[in-house]
Amino acid sequence: MNFCSACGKPVSMAIPVGDHLPRHICSSCGMVHYLNPKLVVGCIADWQERILLCRRSIEPRYGLWTLPAGFMENGETTCEAAQRETSEEACARVEIGSLFAVVNIPHISQVHLFYRARLLGTDFAAGIETLETVLFAEEDIPWQSLAFQSVAFCLQAYFADRKKGVFTFHEHVIQTAKAIEPGSVSNIFTSGQQP
Amino acid sequence: MNFCSACGKPVSMAIPVGDHLPRHICSSCGMVHYLNPKLVVGCIADWQERILLCRRSIEPRYGLWTLPAGFMENGETTCEAAQRETSEEACARVEIGSLFAVVNIPHISQVHLFYRARLLGTDFAAGIETLETVLFAEEDIPWQSLAFQSVAFCLQAYFADRKKGVFTFHEHVIQTAKAIEPGSVSNIFTSGQQP
Repeated sequence: MNFCSACGKPVSMAIPVGDHLPRHICSSCGMVHYLNPKLVVGCIADWQERILLCRRSIEPRYGLWTLPAGFMENGETTCEAAQRETSEEACARVEIGSLFAVVNIPHISQVHLFYRARLLGTDFAAGIETLETVLFAEEDIPWQSLAFQSVAFCLQAYFADRKKGVFTFHEHVIQTAKAIEPGSVSNIFTSGQQP
Repeated sequence: MNFCSACGKPVSMAIPVGDHLPRHICSSCGMVHYLNPKLVVGCIADWQERILLCRRSIEPRYGLWTLPAGFMENGETTCEAAQRETSEEACARVEIGSLFAVVNIPHISQVHLFYRARLLGTDFAAGIETLETVLFAEEDIPWQSLAFQSVAFCLQAYFADRKKGVFTFHEHVIQTAKAIEPGSVSNIFTSGQQP
């Protein structure tokens, strides 16, 4: 951020009165511009024990697999965001259930929310940001080709819960960017599961 | 938003290629500026069955009571945000527990997260945004003088759970701004509680 979005004059960094962090402050109109974390919302949609994944047709992570998810828009709820993203990326109709996981990724200032969801039909298809959309059984999940650590965490937690016969709510923190390896994914799941 | 924060030239509203909503796009450098919902994070901190509330010394809602909560900062987790806000507003040390509620407020593009927490001592005090900080028993909660509907929802859900002897996770949507009345608060709690 170099310029004030209100008046177009340059901004500089300073700590406003009563605040504790440096902010972008307009040198002309004095407006303080706050930068805050973004919410990414998606869902784990199932159909006869299989899970809907999308292979990305855009960067980042072109060609890798993800749960349908994306940036929440102004004016919508988290449930609506999950439903909309699933419709956009997988042309799929879902009934959104309960919140399954909150995944914090502080080094990129994002919070990911994933809902459980039920597919309302198999009339899904690749949306504009998707190369292909597939229902995967647990044994066929492409663990080596998942796009995001939050997706790997959710899928591991989901299948672990399903084995136990009860779905619980999960919180997790991804501390640093790293390649997704079966070992590391397993570790973050174990430490991040909420009792 | 009138000007591009990257180059300072005017922005105009248009739907970017591959997008579905109008965005602020720079007429000069072409940067697309996205506006997304903000996260407000706080906690329900208890001490011997009483709950920590803060009376606000700032607008909006000057003089009214709130749970310690505020806008999440870049680079922190939701737990850290809850802890920091409690420290700033009530100079209180807390141990953050599990996530208690997600409250969507789409008409102001906010998502409020409240954690359960345990006060680690009674050495709290009013922070710079607070007139006074008080531990309230359930029967003394100032229901008529609460600052925000999300706070009223959380407190009602919290005391209802406590009566049942089990704390569960709650999701709720506040659809429109309205005055907080005992009746309306009661209604939103009933409809918003997650089974």
